[in-house]
Amino acid sequence: MNHIPLCLQYIGMNMENTIYKLMTPGPTQVAQNVRMARALSCTNPDSDETFFDFYRDTCELISTLLHTKNETLILSGEGILGLEAACASLTEPGDKVLVIDNGLYGNGFKDFVSLYGGIPTLYTKDYHETLDIDELAAYLAENHDFKYATVVHCDTPSGMLNDISRICPLLKKYGILTVVDSVSAMFGEYVNVDEFQIDILCGGSQKVVSAPAGLTFLNISSDAKAAMKARTTPIASFYANLTIFDGYYEKKWFPYTMPISDIYGLRAAFDNIKAEPDIVERHAKIAAHVREVLSKAGYTFYQNSGFSNTVTVINIPEGLTADSILDTCRKQYNIMLAGSFGEFAGKVVRIGHMGENARLELIDEVLEILCKLTRKK
Amino acid sequence: MNHIPLCLQYIGMNMENTIYKLMTPGPTQVAQNVRMARALSCTNPDSDETFFDFYRDTCELISTLLHTKNETLILSGEGILGLEAACASLTEPGDKVLVIDNGLYGNGFKDFVSLYGGIPTLYTKDYHETLDIDELAAYLAENHDFKYATVVHCDTPSGMLNDISRICPLLKKYGILTVVDSVSAMFGEYVNVDEFQIDILCGGSQKVVSAPAGLTFLNISSDAKAAMKARTTPIASFYANLTIFDGYYEKKWFPYTMPISDIYGLRAAFDNIKAEPDIVERHAKIAAHVREVLSKAGYTFYQNSGFSNTVTVINIPEGLTADSILDTCRKQYNIMLAGSFGEFAGKVVRIGHMGENARLELIDEVLEILCKLTRKK
Repeated sequence: MNHIPLCLQYIGMNMENTIYKLMTPGPTQVAQNVRMARALSCTNPDSDETFFDFYRDTCELISTLLHTKNETLILSGEGILGLEAACASLTEPGDKVLVIDNGLYGNGFKDFVSLYGGIPTLYTKDYHETLDIDELAAYLAENHDFKYATVVHCDTPSGMLNDISRICPLLKKYGILTVVDSVSAMFGEYVNVDEFQIDILCGGSQKVVSAPAGLTFLNISSDAKAAMKARTTPIASFYANLTIFDGYYEKKWFPYTMPISDIYGLRAAFDNIKAEPDIVERHAKIAAHVREVLSKAGYTFYQNSGFSNTVTVINIPEGLTADSILDTCRKQYNIMLAGSFGEFAGKVVRIGHMGENARLELIDEVLEILCKLTRKK
Repeated sequence: MNHIPLCLQYIGMNMENTIYKLMTPGPTQVAQNVRMARALSCTNPDSDETFFDFYRDTCELISTLLHTKNETLILSGEGILGLEAACASLTEPGDKVLVIDNGLYGNGFKDFVSLYGGIPTLYTKDYHETLDIDELAAYLAENHDFKYATVVHCDTPSGMLNDISRICPLLKKYGILTVVDSVSAMFGEYVNVDEFQIDILCGGSQKVVSAPAGLTFLNISSDAKAAMKARTTPIASFYANLTIFDGYYEKKWFPYTMPISDIYGLRAAFDNIKAEPDIVERHAKIAAHVREVLSKAGYTFYQNSGFSNTVTVINIPEGLTADSILDTCRKQYNIMLAGSFGEFAGKVVRIGHMGENARLELIDEVLEILCKLTRKK
């Protein structure tokens, strides 16, 4: 067990001190002010009314950073809870749902749809390409009898970026609500909820936001709320039911005790984002730099199109394996990159240049190692 | 907004500095070593295999402290997620479930049972009394066709303690599985999973354990696992499905990114508990002291029986109101006690003497104020 840092010995865990530099596509490195905020003493979030202001204020900050006045909710749980909550809250038995599938997470949405009685229609496309908008438009012209559609902004296992600025308005044109998983993209990619006409946007704490895993947040349009209100069947979950938050501020009543300490950290992380108006540009520059250097060194990428600002997915050069690359980085340089999973397992290595990872000095260290590896062969 | 402590100003939140001494029945005060553990840099819990050891080791520590080798799982979510997960994972449509109801949370279990298609039978008894074991035995002799039963160890809104050491074996005698909500009792009350024959025991981070809210943990017997395995219908949830953790250690695969930083804090909190073998005695002594002092000062309690080591629930003396007591404590002494909710709202005040709150110097400060209040009248 070598992942516990030295300071934990102080608190009684007698373990070795090795902590990797995380360059994974989430969880990302966490800034010191976020970590310090998590160490603060907290009030009682159930009975201290000022916490209701703090929670709402933090939610409004997130909405503002997403360029909308639509309500944001922070839930106590990992990003995947947000995806399930969106589907659980919208889906009534028999509802038809379009599942845009050009990646592993894109495909995975069908399971949440089915779980809550919906009928998913898979719109499956090449996992190497960003979604073709004209093709989707042609498809929708013929097929648009869907209550909502799911789309993944950046499909992290393969690093595929989809152009939600064009996909969502196209869907809304046919009255199809949109559920967007932007967990690993938002703030590294530009997201404008109002302009893109997104109905439910799902985010997570541990990606670009660079807080620890454990929180998910959802931005919810009035159309999405109306759809939940118009349901004739109950939502078949409590913890994944978004309507349990209805009127929390007026009633001064949360459906469960809010993870206030985690939210202190999240707030610090969002204050960091607010203080950096050029955060998307930083990500864009770093991503371009990564691809330029790696291309020159002879690396090829999983994608032909749909390159994301937040993650780069490289194919394994001849003579190397995913494990050998990961092991070299970890054992010789104390840097953690990521493999992938599902059909991508062993076939690619992923560099997460999102949030606090997306710093030139950090990424250059990684690039130097990767370039050395191909020279060695 | 006066609940943000001074140090948050450093990280950019320009708010006033008032932090209350929490004497609420959860969330409780959090020890410094737990807060510091939450501020540590973390590894990537998905790809660093050593985290799987740390997670399992922490789960095994919890099991040991509960006197069992039954597996413990830590989930990313608040205590109520644990209750829902237990019911979601056990309940198949049409299953008959006995819901022991002598408190608000006891009663609330019926909703989780119904949500997943079960048929709850309410065993409703006086909310002022701990469950009568002989009466239950007589009932069960005639009525025992239940797949499982739910019981709350300490029903926090009214502070009712039930004797799970006798209730659970009685149920098991009839082959009825037991789901026990001990969120606000365990470690303040003695819990021996094996001796008490508990099938699913639910705990939360923010009560006696004295870590911040945001984690729930469940201890699960082989009988409960067998019942989940024997299901002929799928579990109608992902996030509340306990079987998604099956084989996580062997597969080195968590169903979602674990909240590693929260778990660092939880581990520190459990190390504190491990280091204090007399923790239940500390709670018992403090509770007896609270009741003795308050009785002498003329206070009466909500319960006639079923007094808990972790919370004391006082009736409102004539001439005072719940709000006036809470306000005096908060505004004049910077101490936060709790009101209650549901049918108890406005009728009682609750003193949480659990976990880090259960220290003589802290509780004596509260008792002095409460005694002064009745003298003033």
